[in-house]
Amino acid sequence: MPKLLILNGPNLNLLGTRQPEVYGSETLQMVEEKCRDHGRSKGCEVYCYQSNHEGDLIDQIHNAKTAQDGIILNAGAYTHTSVALMDALFSVELPAIEVHLSNIHARESFRHQSYISRAVVGQICGFGSFGYVMAMDAMVAHLGSK
Amino acid sequence: MPKLLILNGPNLNLLGTRQPEVYGSETLQMVEEKCRDHGRSKGCEVYCYQSNHEGDLIDQIHNAKTAQDGIILNAGAYTHTSVALMDALFSVELPAIEVHLSNIHARESFRHQSYISRAVVGQICGFGSFGYVMAMDAMVAHLGSK
Amino acid sequence: MPKLLILNGPNLNLLGTRQPEVYGSETLQMVEEKCRDHGRSKGCEVYCYQSNHEGDLIDQIHNAKTAQDGIILNAGAYTHTSVALMDALFSVELPAIEVHLSNIHARESFRHQSYISRAVVGQICGFGSFGYVMAMDAMVAHLGSK
Amino acid sequence: MPKLLILNGPNLNLLGTRQPEVYGSETLQMVEEKCRDHGRSKGCEVYCYQSNHEGDLIDQIHNAKTAQDGIILNAGAYTHTSVALMDALFSVELPAIEVHLSNIHARESFRHQSYISRAVVGQICGFGSFGYVMAMDAMVAHLGSK
Amino acid sequence: MPKLLILNGPNLNLLGTRQPEVYGSETLQMVEEKCRDHGRSKGCEVYCYQSNHEGDLIDQIHNAKTAQDGIILNAGAYTHTSVALMDALFSVELPAIEVHLSNIHARESFRHQSYISRAVVGQICGFGSFGYVMAMDAMVAHLGSK
Amino acid sequence: MPKLLILNGPNLNLLGTRQPEVYGSETLQMVEEKCRDHGRSKGCEVYCYQSNHEGDLIDQIHNAKTAQDGIILNAGAYTHTSVALMDALFSVELPAIEVHLSNIHARESFRHQSYISRAVVGQICGFGSFGYVMAMDAMVAHLGSK
Amino acid sequence: MPKLLILNGPNLNLLGTRQPEVYGSETLQMVEEKCRDHGRSKGCEVYCYQSNHEGDLIDQIHNAKTAQDGIILNAGAYTHTSVALMDALFSVELPAIEVHLSNIHARESFRHQSYISRAVVGQICGFGSFGYVMAMDAMVAHLGSK
Amino acid sequence: MPKLLILNGPNLNLLGTRQPEVYGSETLQMVEEKCRDHGRSKGCEVYCYQSNHEGDLIDQIHNAKTAQDGIILNAGAYTHTSVALMDALFSVELPAIEVHLSNIHARESFRHQSYISRAVVGQICGFGSFGYVMAMDAMVAHLGSK
Amino acid sequence: MPKLLILNGPNLNLLGTRQPEVYGSETLQMVEEKCRDHGRSKGCEVYCYQSNHEGDLIDQIHNAKTAQDGIILNAGAYTHTSVALMDALFSVELPAIEVHLSNIHARESFRHQSYISRAVVGQICGFGSFGYVMAMDAMVAHLGSK
Amino acid sequence: MPKLLILNGPNLNLLGTRQPEVYGSETLQMVEEKCRDHGRSKGCEVYCYQSNHEGDLIDQIHNAKTAQDGIILNAGAYTHTSVALMDALFSVELPAIEVHLSNIHARESFRHQSYISRAVVGQICGFGSFGYVMAMDAMVAHLGSK
Amino acid sequence: MPKLLILNGPNLNLLGTRQPEVYGSETLQMVEEKCRDHGRSKGCEVYCYQSNHEGDLIDQIHNAKTAQDGIILNAGAYTHTSVALMDALFSVELPAIEVHLSNIHARESFRHQSYISRAVVGQICGFGSFGYVMAMDAMVAHLGSK
Amino acid sequence: MPKLLILNGPNLNLLGTRQPEVYGSETLQMVEEKCRDHGRSKGCEVYCYQSNHEGDLIDQIHNAKTAQDGIILNAGAYTHTSVALMDALFSVELPAIEVHLSNIHARESFRHQSYISRAVVGQICGFGSFGYVMAMDAMVAHLGSK
Repeated sequence: MPKLLILNGPNLNLLGTRQPEVYGSETLQMVEEKCRDHGRSKGCEVYCYQSNHEGDLIDQIHNAKTAQDGIILNAGAYTHTSVALMDALFSVELPAIEVHLSNIHARESFRHQSYISRAVVGQICGFGSFGYVMAMDAMVAHLGSK
Repeated sequence: MPKLLILNGPNLNLLGTRQPEVYGSETLQMVEEKCRDHGRSKGCEVYCYQSNHEGDLIDQIHNAKTAQDGIILNAGAYTHTSVALMDALFSVELPAIEVHLSNIHARESFRHQSYISRAVVGQICGFGSFGYVMAMDAMVAHLGSK
Repeated sequence: MPKLLILNGPNLNLLGTRQPEVYGSETLQMVEEKCRDHGRSKGCEVYCYQSNHEGDLIDQIHNAKTAQDGIILNAGAYTHTSVALMDALFSVELPAIEVHLSNIHARESFRHQSYISRAVVGQICGFGSFGYVMAMDAMVAHLGSK
Repeated sequence: MPKLLILNGPNLNLLGTRQPEVYGSETLQMVEEKCRDHGRSKGCEVYCYQSNHEGDLIDQIHNAKTAQDGIILNAGAYTHTSVALMDALFSVELPAIEVHLSNIHARESFRHQSYISRAVVGQICGFGSFGYVMAMDAMVAHLGSK
Repeated sequence: MPKLLILNGPNLNLLGTRQPEVYGSETLQMVEEKCRDHGRSKGCEVYCYQSNHEGDLIDQIHNAKTAQDGIILNAGAYTHTSVALMDALFSVELPAIEVHLSNIHARESFRHQSYISRAVVGQICGFGSFGYVMAMDAMVAHLGSK
Repeated sequence: MPKLLILNGPNLNLLGTRQPEVYGSETLQMVEEKCRDHGRSKGCEVYCYQSNHEGDLIDQIHNAKTAQDGIILNAGAYTHTSVALMDALFSVELPAIEVHLSNIHARESFRHQSYISRAVVGQICGFGSFGYVMAMDAMVAHLGSK
Repeated sequence: MPKLLILNGPNLNLLGTRQPEVYGSETLQMVEEKCRDHGRSKGCEVYCYQSNHEGDLIDQIHNAKTAQDGIILNAGAYTHTSVALMDALFSVELPAIEVHLSNIHARESFRHQSYISRAVVGQICGFGSFGYVMAMDAMVAHLGSK
Repeated sequence: MPKLLILNGPNLNLLGTRQPEVYGSETLQMVEEKCRDHGRSKGCEVYCYQSNHEGDLIDQIHNAKTAQDGIILNAGAYTHTSVALMDALFSVELPAIEVHLSNIHARESFRHQSYISRAVVGQICGFGSFGYVMAMDAMVAHLGSK
Repeated sequence: MPKLLILNGPNLNLLGTRQPEVYGSETLQMVEEKCRDHGRSKGCEVYCYQSNHEGDLIDQIHNAKTAQDGIILNAGAYTHTSVALMDALFSVELPAIEVHLSNIHARESFRHQSYISRAVVGQICGFGSFGYVMAMDAMVAHLGSK
Repeated sequence: MPKLLILNGPNLNLLGTRQPEVYGSETLQMVEEKCRDHGRSKGCEVYCYQSNHEGDLIDQIHNAKTAQDGIILNAGAYTHTSVALMDALFSVELPAIEVHLSNIHARESFRHQSYISRAVVGQICGFGSFGYVMAMDAMVAHLGSK
Repeated sequence: MPKLLILNGPNLNLLGTRQPEVYGSETLQMVEEKCRDHGRSKGCEVYCYQSNHEGDLIDQIHNAKTAQDGIILNAGAYTHTSVALMDALFSVELPAIEVHLSNIHARESFRHQSYISRAVVGQICGFGSFGYVMAMDAMVAHLGSK
Repeated sequence: MPKLLILNGPNLNLLGTRQPEVYGSETLQMVEEKCRDHGRSKGCEVYCYQSNHEGDLIDQIHNAKTAQDGIILNAGAYTHTSVALMDALFSVELPAIEVHLSNIHARESFRHQSYISRAVVGQICGFGSFGYVMAMDAMVAHLGSK
């Protein structure tokens, strides 16, 4: 029974209230609940965590090394600026998948670059909260193929 | 019953024989068959097409305007160089999803840029042929939400 | 009686249906008819051709070397990416005029650069289909002044 | 009866004597006369002005706000360096057309950029003094279409 | 009675002792007291907070959504590197004003760029602690004009 | 009794009529009157000048060397292109403050750079005409602290 | 008996008539005949193909995978813009040699970059049609050394 | 008896388990013990601290102002992105030495830049944990020479 | 008897009072007198002109076409920004020499570029007012060698 | 009987011992002997020289002006950094051919640029020591065609 | 008993007299003596060499291949420009350590880049002549660990 | 009696024979004789030296520290690439003047940058061999003014 960490970064706690035309109207609680539901249906144990603190996200990734089997990460704005998060993913050597609610490649140019991408299996962006469900399916497939 | 165009670009006809350590060992025929199977299970009609010719890909996108409801596009190397394909997608105003077998953001820097991205709902990369299945699921969800 | 090639590139076959707020509501057939009409009034023979294929456009330019006296070219998105079209124009050594329906210099920055410009007498952009008429007048004047 | 301002910028007073291989052998007086003649034939009132002073050109554009219906502007070298002229055009909200005698896109790279372009209907370059005639036709068509 | 959050970022706790030739000799406590005094005279309630932690600053901005009417933010060095702080400001949709003690545009080039600027009403820099007073006046005027 | 020069650059004479959604609906005369009123209340003598000519603005700055005690400068579009205005400010060695009606850092990227900034005490932008009042307060404080 | 594909790209069909001061006066037929002659003398079977279509060139490279032992490629202008041709060469894993008639490194800067170079044994440029003969000698030596 | 702060940044807590081919097989505890031992032999008091939180590292640097005589800092990935850490070092005006386990100048290009470097006496990189010992020797020499 | 125009640009009227540590303590009047004296000793007629207005400088260059035999130009800050002044020099086709009081290549990087340089015989910088004397000698030699 | 200078630059004296996986296992003596042998068979006189000193290479090129008819140059790492060697080749006006053992265009990006290329007939790279033989053939053909 | 080459590049012969505020007041002879003393205490044989000639430095590195066990190199200004020195280090495959007297990362930006860094174990900068002693310790440790 | 070193760099020994349309037809011997003659007339002792070796030029600059009072340097192509020559000039702290025969600012862009410029009193370019005479006059004036 694979254990998955669903990790959300800065400002994602405001989901649902923050620029709904960009990020949709579901709250983070609803998204996390959807992930847990989907996890149950796929036979996965899901642990959700959100923080606005880069250091907290790094700590959680470190913890996942022994506690989880895969990481689904929406690093929010840290995606574009945090070499430390990328290094954390490389350090724990767990499979990770990068998710973004919006299509970051169609937004401002500073959102086109991702340090996270260098340390993950793949990236999913533009599908709103459904992207987390897709990422869980992809992680299960990935863990199964190893 | 939604109709989907699965469109593959240059060199994808060699799938399975081309650098399998990067692109996997399935052939294009196997991938297309997998898409048709998945389509049947999701209640979609799937039309597959591959060409090494940029102009052919543009023609197919134009045809899709009246023939299909959504486009799943792996434009291969044209992803990074073709403004014309991007314009074709904008022209037909159909929802499109961009797929890449490999994680293009973790490869050479000229593969990080995508003109296609600007004209699609979202991008999926790094999950091998499973990415097409994910894209079909996302397209069905997208068409359903409209 | 000068013979003119009116050559249109990718996605221009969708004219009238494609983003009319940018490109106007006339179809390509209407634009070509307008050119033929204007040609008759100016004593020119007009041959119109459109293709989404870069290679076809190059072939047509090559054919023009013996068949026409001047080329009016709207290379669409290939304007910004095709060194091969520029080389084709240099190769045939016919006078050519570059036309764009929209003002490319007021759009995305990657549309500001034109390889075509280096191989033409002049550029006309921003005047919709009237730009073709202007180009025909300019070509007649240019051919007359030589 | 539309009123047009034909505005010429720095060094264009030397037309005819300045590098005739680049700019042609007509003097500015001849070009302005040609514009006035063409204006009469098209039913336009034409007012011509030239200055080497950026501030004078801005003042004239401001005056045009109440005195003319459209502006045909060859800003010479200020094309590439003057944000103030661009802002002046935006400020008066008159239709403007940018003209250059030579094909600026085939010259030194610093002549490829135009601030003026962002504030005009369209650009015409490479056709010598005939470009002013083309611009007048385009302006009349533009004013008629509004 | 408008409520204002005065938010100070990294290293500003050392104010008065840190490079006084650049940042002045007042301590942060003195600056905050000055703000509270000025608030009283303008009829504003002032809440001051400082942290060296990017995540704490984001949390405070989130809290302000329901607790305050406007934010005056000196993000210190995070100004130049934090997309997350910019996103936080966009998320809460409160008016914000950016303050810097020194004239950042006359210092090292990496201090010329500000992500914060994209999400604020305006920027004030170079006036030492008096800049906070100016920002409070501007915020009161801004809130009054809405 | 400090004497202040309020210097406005190109296109600011059109204030009130020019893009009011960006620059507000007050005319330059109203803004200058507001400055003179505020000056009276602060015990300052205010001299206002506007020109579209870069050379005139330089001449005024030179005159201020003996006639005024401080300069409040909105150089408009010259902000981004004029090394000569920057040098003029350095030459007269008077304190100067840079004002912009709009938040230039949230507009087109070529408006993010300011040569003027290198030669001033500080910059204020984004507060409309209230920015001049803020600048006068800051100048009085600055002159008093010397 | 090694089999070699001599593949020529866009505009090379005009050889002999196109800018002979740059590209020499031999026609493509003459160059291909020279290659076949040289092939006979070296014991190689030579197959020549030219196209202006990027897709055709890709198709030919794919065909070569089973039909030939090595590829000698002058991709013309596609050299500088086609990631797809580079990928095609990587896909078939045949030894390839890049030839250019002119010294591309002494021409316009956009001709200095070659995507093709990344996928070939070596590059030969500047020796006119003799470069093909050199490439055949090098290919024979290369195939012999494996 | 000089007091030294040995400060380690993000992901260094995983030392020994994280990519040992890059960072070596010693744990952070072993490295810190080695530093304390070396400190005893050199007559220094050593205080070690590690955090994944940028803000914590800044707080520790601030504390060092009164508690220690010098700082030996391996800022990990924050080296390349944190202006705030650089400002913290400038703020406390203590001598600092930058250490990296790996030779950052021979790795990815984004690791070649260091904001930390601008605020330190010197940099040591590439010598694994021995670099800390070298830094301690250099700090003792530096403190002695003042 | 050669006639020389000594043309000085923006802020040079403040010579002697402006940053004397950079530009020396002679006034412009003294420099011009020195030039006239040196002209008399070399048998040259010298005409001196200074303006802060770019347009005035262009007008003077135009006038020189019939009135003088050579131009010695210190364009001040316009050196780095004025394509129009460069074009003016090209237009009149008189020999010109560029002078700068300070060594512009050892100052801020935006002072390293000179548009003027492209249109002159040579450049002299760093020798204070003695540079004008050197330029006069060089111009006399240049005119004599033609 | 043409006389050829075979000139090798820095580190090529270590050929055979230096990174044989990149540069092959032949020593420089073997390569030079191969060149002399090939020269005898082609009726050329061959003079070989190697130096690690940029100045020596320049001196040899100067000497070749009167002593040889053509230069075959592998400038090693000076290829990418030496304007002086390029100028030396331009100065002596002898035909020169550039050779590299490895395919420099498929290595680090700083090896893609060559100053030498601007001053030679053509470039050959990627064929190991066989490239010298190819260059000799090309030089003989080049000298014969003049 | 390890043998070390201490190699110093251009201008280091002037040590002690050259900008002592940057490089310290010890002469090169004193530094070399210090290295020999330290070598004796560590059981190393030390050979010192300095040259202003890039070629001499390359020759010495080549000689070291058989004569020494490790290289300590301060390449001075060649650090930033010499690909040839980097290649020399790669060619001999000896461990090397890069030393700089000053903290090159806190000086002009062209001193931040080092070609040497790519070919060494590690870099030490900013510690004056003590850096050589540190490098010797690090080299002894490095040689011992192999 | 001031002593001057006239130092010429790479390829200047070929003066008179090398591209006379760029560099003139005088030989280096003639130029040096002209300098010695001019020196005699000005009461200077002149020592001339030329080398193609960067190291030799550095050595001569070092020697000049005790042997000469000023340096006139035409570093040829090393101007654009040699940080070491710049450092040599800074090291000896003698006044130096940079001379170029041609107007380097009107040639290829890589000739616009000069490292030498940062370490000299001034630069003279474009006046052929007369530039040396001008430099001697300027050096005498400079030495006299100290």
